[in-house]
This record gives sequence, C-alpha cells and structure tokens, in this order.
Amino acid sequence: MSGEVAAGAGDDPLVIVANRGPVQHKCADGERTAERGKGGLVTALSGLAGHFDGAVWVCAALSDEDVAVTREHDGAAFDLEGDGPSLRVRMLELDPEAQHKFYAVISNPLLWFIQHYLWDLSDSPNITRHEIDAFDNGYVPVNDQFADAVAEEIEALGGRATVMLQDYHFYLVAERIRARCPDAFLHHFIHIPWPHPDAWKVLPPGMREALFNGVLGNDVVAFHSRFYARNFLLCCQELLGLRVDLDTYTVEVGDRTVATRWHPISVNPDELETAAESPAVAEHVERLGSERREHMVLRVDRADLSKNILRGFRAFDTMLDDHPELAEKVTFLALLQPSREDVAQYVDYLDKTKKLVDEVNGKHRTDGWLPIHLDLDGDFDQVLAAYKLFDVLVVNAVFDGMNLVAKESVLVNERNGVLALSENTGAFEELGKHAVTLHPFDIQQQADALFSALTMDPEQRRERLESCAAIVRENDIAKWLNEQLRDVRRFGEREPKKA
Amino acid sequence: MSGEVAAGAGDDPLVIVANRGPVQHKCADGERTAERGKGGLVTALSGLAGHFDGAVWVCAALSDEDVAVTREHDGAAFDLEGDGPSLRVRMLELDPEAQHKFYAVISNPLLWFIQHYLWDLSDSPNITRHEIDAFDNGYVPVNDQFADAVAEEIEALGGRATVMLQDYHFYLVAERIRARCPDAFLHHFIHIPWPHPDAWKVLPPGMREALFNGVLGNDVVAFHSRFYARNFLLCCQELLGLRVDLDTYTVEVGDRTVATRWHPISVNPDELETAAESPAVAEHVERLGSERREHMVLRVDRADLSKNILRGFRAFDTMLDDHPELAEKVTFLALLQPSREDVAQYVDYLDKTKKLVDEVNGKHRTDGWLPIHLDLDGDFDQVLAAYKLFDVLVVNAVFDGMNLVAKESVLVNERNGVLALSENTGAFEELGKHAVTLHPFDIQQQADALFSALTMDPEQRRERLESCAAIVRENDIAKWLNEQLRDVRRFGEREPKKA
Repeated sequence: MSGEVAAGAGDDPLVIVANRGPVQHKCADGERTAERGKGGLVTALSGLAGHFDGAVWVCAALSDEDVAVTREHDGAAFDLEGDGPSLRVRMLELDPEAQHKFYAVISNPLLWFIQHYLWDLSDSPNITRHEIDAFDNGYVPVNDQFADAVAEEIEALGGRATVMLQDYHFYLVAERIRARCPDAFLHHFIHIPWPHPDAWKVLPPGMREALFNGVLGNDVVAFHSRFYARNFLLCCQELLGLRVDLDTYTVEVGDRTVATRWHPISVNPDELETAAESPAVAEHVERLGSERREHMVLRVDRADLSKNILRGFRAFDTMLDDHPELAEKVTFLALLQPSREDVAQYVDYLDKTKKLVDEVNGKHRTDGWLPIHLDLDGDFDQVLAAYKLFDVLVVNAVFDGMNLVAKESVLVNERNGVLALSENTGAFEELGKHAVTLHPFDIQQQADALFSALTMDPEQRRERLESCAAIVRENDIAKWLNEQLRDVRRFGEREPKKA
Repeated sequence: MSGEVAAGAGDDPLVIVANRGPVQHKCADGERTAERGKGGLVTALSGLAGHFDGAVWVCAALSDEDVAVTREHDGAAFDLEGDGPSLRVRMLELDPEAQHKFYAVISNPLLWFIQHYLWDLSDSPNITRHEIDAFDNGYVPVNDQFADAVAEEIEALGGRATVMLQDYHFYLVAERIRARCPDAFLHHFIHIPWPHPDAWKVLPPGMREALFNGVLGNDVVAFHSRFYARNFLLCCQELLGLRVDLDTYTVEVGDRTVATRWHPISVNPDELETAAESPAVAEHVERLGSERREHMVLRVDRADLSKNILRGFRAFDTMLDDHPELAEKVTFLALLQPSREDVAQYVDYLDKTKKLVDEVNGKHRTDGWLPIHLDLDGDFDQVLAAYKLFDVLVVNAVFDGMNLVAKESVLVNERNGVLALSENTGAFEELGKHAVTLHPFDIQQQADALFSALTMDPEQRRERLESCAAIVRENDIAKWLNEQLRDVRRFGEREPKKA
C-alpha cells in the first residue's frame, strides 16, 4: 500500500459487515479452494484488522462451497488463512428465497435504482405484493440475521466493538445492533449516491421510514461526497421531520446526534501497478496493441444502467458522423462485465446495448474496420492491458457514487491517455479539473468532448494524466481508511461509552 | 367569486404574461368569434385588471384567427370586449417553427419532464443538436419576443409596472425585462413543481444557468408549495453557488434579494357551482346516472404522464382481483383529455393507456358489465356531471404542482364522494387529512385505499367531503390572488423604485 494506515481506532475490536466477504470458496474436482477477494476495498478492509484488538468480518455465504464451509463451522467465525493480520470470518447461510428477495428485488433494482435516479417514474416501479413481500420476507429477515450475528460477536467480545457496515444492503442493521449492544460504536459507509428526498417517495412511507430509522442507528454515516451527505440530511429533515444542521452536517435523533461524513474511496496504487506488470497482462497488451488503430477509445464498466453505456455509443456515433476523417482510424473498445443477470432491467439493458452496437457498427463499418469492439468477458488482466493502451477513457455515468475505473486507469495508462469524465461521478470532485468533462445526458457535448480529447496536444495530455495519477496516489485507499478511523476516534470519544 | 380580490397593488399598471391569452379567436363560415377563456385562472387574472391602474395581457396568438386579429392590430394591444374591468390584450405572432421548438420540444417535454421527474434517465433525454437548436432558435427567441413586447408596454406606460409572469414557458423573460425596465416589479408564478437540483443536471450547464439566471431576474418567484420554493433555493445554492437563506426563503443575486413565496392556487367556487347547474350538465347527469352501477370510481385528467393513469388502472385491476364481490357492482369512469399530441411521449402514453384498459376489461368484464369506461372526449359539462356522481375520485398523480380536479370535484359532488388523493400533489397539503391518501407508486396500497374508500361509512364520507369543500371555499382563487398582491406590495416597497 502506498500510504499506510496510520493508527488504530482505540482498544475496541472491529466488526466489518459486508454482503461479500474477504474470501470465496469454490470446489472443483472435489478440491476446495479459498480465493481471497481482489480489489482495493477487500484488501484494505482486511488490512484494518491489524490496527484493532481483534477483528471479525461478517458476510453472506455466497457460493455453495461457502455454505458448506459455514456448516462445517456450525455458523461460527473461523480464522482466515494467509498473510496479513489475524482476521476471522463469519459467514451467514441465508435462506435462498430470502436472499433472492433481499438481493435481487429490494437491493437491486429497487434501492439501487432509487439511489441512482434510474426509475422511469411514469411507469415504474410498481410497488405490489411482490415488492412488499420481498421487503418483509427478504430484506428485513436478512438484515435481522446479520444484526443478530454481529450482536453475538460483540457480546462474545465483551459488549464493546467498532462496527463498520458497508453499503445499501444493510440499512436496517445498525438500529437493531444498537438495541442489543448500546456500547458498540456504529459506522456505516454507503458506497453509492444518496439522492434527494423526492427520489425516496417511490417507497411506501413505512418502508422508507424503516430504512432511514435503521441507518440513523449509526453514530456516523459516511459517503463519498459532501453532496450525498447533504442529501441524506435533507431527507432526514423533509421525510422524517428531524432537526438537522447543514453546517455541521449532523442530525438529531432523540437524544443522540448522528454525524454524516464524506471520504472519497480510492484504489491501492501499488497493488494495481504490480498487477499491471504481470505476464498475463503483457499478453493482452500485445494482442490489443497489434489490433489497434491510430486511436483507441476505451470504456470499462459493469453493464449497469447507471453507467450510461447507450449514450456513450450514441456520442461515438455522432463523432463519426461529424468527423468522417476518423473513419478507420479509431476504435471504441468496450469492456463490459454483465451484471445482475437475474434482474429483468439488466437483461433488457444489455440487449439494448448489443443492438445499438450492431446499429452503429452497421452504419460506419468498412472492410476490415469495426468501429466498436464489445467484449463481455470481464477479465481483469485484459482490463489492465486496455488501461495501458487507451487514448481516451470514457466514464460518462448518469450518476455514480465514485467510479474507480477513472482512478485505476490513470495510474496504469502509458500513452498519455485522456480521462473523459462525467460531472455526475464522485471521482469528478477530485479529478474533474484535469479531465475532459462529460455532460452525461448531452450526446452532442460528449461527441465534441471525445473529439477534442482525441485531438488534444500531446503535452497537455501528458500533464493532465500525470496530474490525475498524482492525485490518486496521494488520495489512496489508505487515506480513505485513515479518515474513517479518525472519525471513529473523534466521534467515539465525543460520546463516552458507558462504564 | 366567493371571495373578492381585496385591494390593488399600488399605482402601477399591470402586465400579465402567459402563453395562453384571455381570449381565443376562431373563424367558422366566415364569421369570427372571440371565445373568452374558461376556468378560474383566466377569469381571476382578467379580474385583476380592475385593481390596477390599467392592465395589459401579453400572450401568444395561438389560433390562425388570433394571428389574423394580431395582424389587423399591427401587433399592438387591443381592448378586450365584454364585461369586467378594462383589459387590453397584446397577442404575439410567433414564427411557427420557433413556436414549435419553444413549445413542443423545450417546454414540453423537456422542462415539463424535468420538473415532474418523468425522464427515464438511463436512456432519455438525449440532448442532441435537435434540442440545442430548439433552445437557441425556439425557447430563446420566443422569450426574447415576449420580453421585448412587455418592455415596450412598460415603456409606453412610463417605465413602471407590475409584471406577473406565468409558468415554465417564460423562464428567460424577467432578466431581459429588468435589463430594459429596471423600475418594473417582476413577479413570476410557476404552476408546476420545482424539482431538486439533481433533476436539472440533465440540461447542459449553459442552458440550465440561462434558465435560472432568467428566473432570478424576478423580484418574487412564487410556487404552489413551500417544498417547491425550498427546492428552488437548494438549486440556486448547489447549481449556481448563490447564497440562500432557507429560513427567510430568499436568495442573494448580486446586490439584489429575490424572494420565493408559496400560495396554493384554487378554483372559483361560485363560477363552478353555477356551471354545474346548467341544462347541459343535467343531461349528462341523467345519462351517466342511468348507466351507473352501485359504485362509480372517477378520474378526470389530461392524458399526461405525470397523472399516473396506468398505475390507477392497475390498482383498480388489483382491487377487482382482491374483491371478486365487487364484480358488476363498480365502474371506473376515466375522462381523459388527450394532450400534447405532437409530442411522441404523449402519443405513446395514450397508446399504453388504451392497451391497459383493454387488458383489464378483457380480464374482468362480464356480459353487460365493462369495468373501465375510457372517454377521451374532454367535454367539461360531462366532467361536471361526473363530479356530481362519483363515489370515489382518484387523483393518484406521480407528481403534480397542485391538481385542481381535486378541488373542483369536492365542490360539485352530491353523493358524499370520497377524494382519494396522491400525497405528491400540491393539493394534498390542504386536503390530505380529509382525503384517503394514495401512495402513487404503490399499486397495492392504491387498491386497498380504493376499496376502503368505496366501503367507507356514509357519515364519515359526508364529513370528509364537507371538510374538503369548506377548505376549498375558504382558500379560493381570490385568496390566491390576494396573497400575491400582498407580496407585490410588500416586496415592492422593500426595494423602492428609482425616482
């Protein structure tokens, strides 16, 4: 890690709560493997363990083999093997039907779409018995199960702990833990945008109040951006009638004060740069390099409606219309990872995406030149290779909590590539002034911006890329964690624990 | 008028600005007719003329005959004939192409959809050359033309006037008038919701800033609800970086302070009750009454995406599923007025509506019983007759600035009809506690609420209806105007005119 996590957060043990754990078990040919999660967040959160007096990570058993492992431990926590500080893992076997309702009906699409402003409100969502049932018999019991497990861990640890909840799957958990373990310090990081009050009005009042009251069980609620924290407070004020302070960013809940904070998440530069040097990446670089034309436009995304994939292709189409001189000179490599394939909206979206790619390619292709290369493979080595080679990276998200592709790509690129970045991403606050700004609803502006990025003076491109990379190296994931630990110390001290 | 407009607003003359004028000219068999606009708003605004030292209404020439009349007057204002105080009308002949871009591209759907949260953001709108052109060569020049005409009128009146701008068609006008006529007092009433800042992000920054700066040319910006005023201020703060005061509901713009206000519009009870007694209405009452079953559910709406017509029928479908005992006993009369038929989204929506009605009728109909009667005729006499006869009136709008159907219907109903009212309408603030609340995205809740309204105790129904009617009689359109006039006096005095 470029920056080290500076210090612990007191003497309490740590409980991390996330849907996905630090390890996933697989079974092939009768052989069990335990694959450690990749990516900065898992590594960073796992690394936190070394700074606390013991740590346990509570997560869902996601694979069949996870379930087998969980049963072997009778549902209890077990030690995570491997390097690094001692970390125990407690996997929860969820009822499959409840898990589906929790994950594929309520968390996605219902909450995800609300928080990214993705509902087509004139006709969706329709809250019916199906959604009510999914909340009552999916989201609620899964949150209960997590809360119970966390409370058991805290009680086993003597009643005191710092709990770090992750994301939108667990809005009900903090309130329930607090009821059982009043001495725990509860911290919730929400990794997606928090929208304005009106966006929450799609939920029945009872449901939305349950969610808000759940989140308000925390001591600190943290986001990537000040705007999300502000929206959260505006929601508390308008939807719950609570007293908020928009200067100190706090909300009064009974006799407690809940603080909101914002810390932009980041990546682990060393880990990423090391991964980019692997032979597998080099092979991809060679192949992609041999296929490339004069200019390469790249996008790397989960195939999610928030990512604005359709408008990105329309903008590329418009640019080719406006600049016929680019014919046969530019390719748009789109590395999309299919996502949430059990959710109808995602299936439809990927289908629309493929059709649009065919349409644009059909319109512009020539003998031997395919303007858009759509790849749904999602191999991260290929992603790293493409990061090295792009001339312009397109991140045009409709709304995006942070967008780590923007941060990863500028560390790895070797061609003075230009970051073209949506103003509606969390990353824009840090990198926007060195990026080419994209207005995500404006096709013409995106087409013009793409063209200006492709034809930008090389020296200016170099300066922009270096500036972006320097910012990401400075604001790395260790800094993100350190700032949260500082909050834990600060707000934990403000409200002394009972003796 | 039940309540009289109490007093003028000082010695300045009045200039009303609205897309639609107080009169529309038609020509049939070579004979010109001048039809006075119906409805409370036109009558009320026209009536204002008597309280000012002269009044002129600036509007668009909407019909071919309006254009002919406008040309006969060389574009100058002419006296409006008929009863009532002296009012002049200045109609503007707009370039047809500019008018189309102004009205059918920018005002509807672009602004209307933003302000009602109706865009399906993952895929629409697409801002392309078409939209940019419609703004630059439609909305801007039409607003310029209105501003020039208003400024000419003010200059002809000696440079002082109270200008009352109406609605979302004229966001650029106030700033332009202020530049030419700094002594004018500028008041803008916006009749639709004002959404939160993120909703405005669909517009290119240049366009949205032009709109906001235009509106901020006013001295007072008024809405139906405090929430819209608050959203407007939050937008000024977040999107323009202006200093706002959320306690006094003001925003600082350079060395000026712009006030926001909220006054819920209403109807003219006397006018409405008189109209409901006409022989034409009686004929409709007789016909509808002879066709009715035990219960009549009614909705009356423009066929607009904001009105939530599809979910209303789905809720009715669900209620019939849940309560087979209602078969053949209840009909849903839907009086929909087709609207904006030159806008693709409206054509599609009406098409979806018809299909859904066929589907629900196909599922539940029996010999001689058609559950839903869809009527697209829009005859106001029939509407008044239906108002008299309903047992439950459904207003389930997704978002609606006010919704006057809710206010009209409770004055006219003769069957202790129950108002079932969306919590997302402006009207809900006044009538909500006597209505059955509808959660507009929740089909099941609407189905349950419909059933509970249909089976409610008669005495409770009577009390609710009487309470609603009393509130509307008290808060009538005269009160709405009086409050605006009070603002004109109050804020006009705060910033003394130059000598």
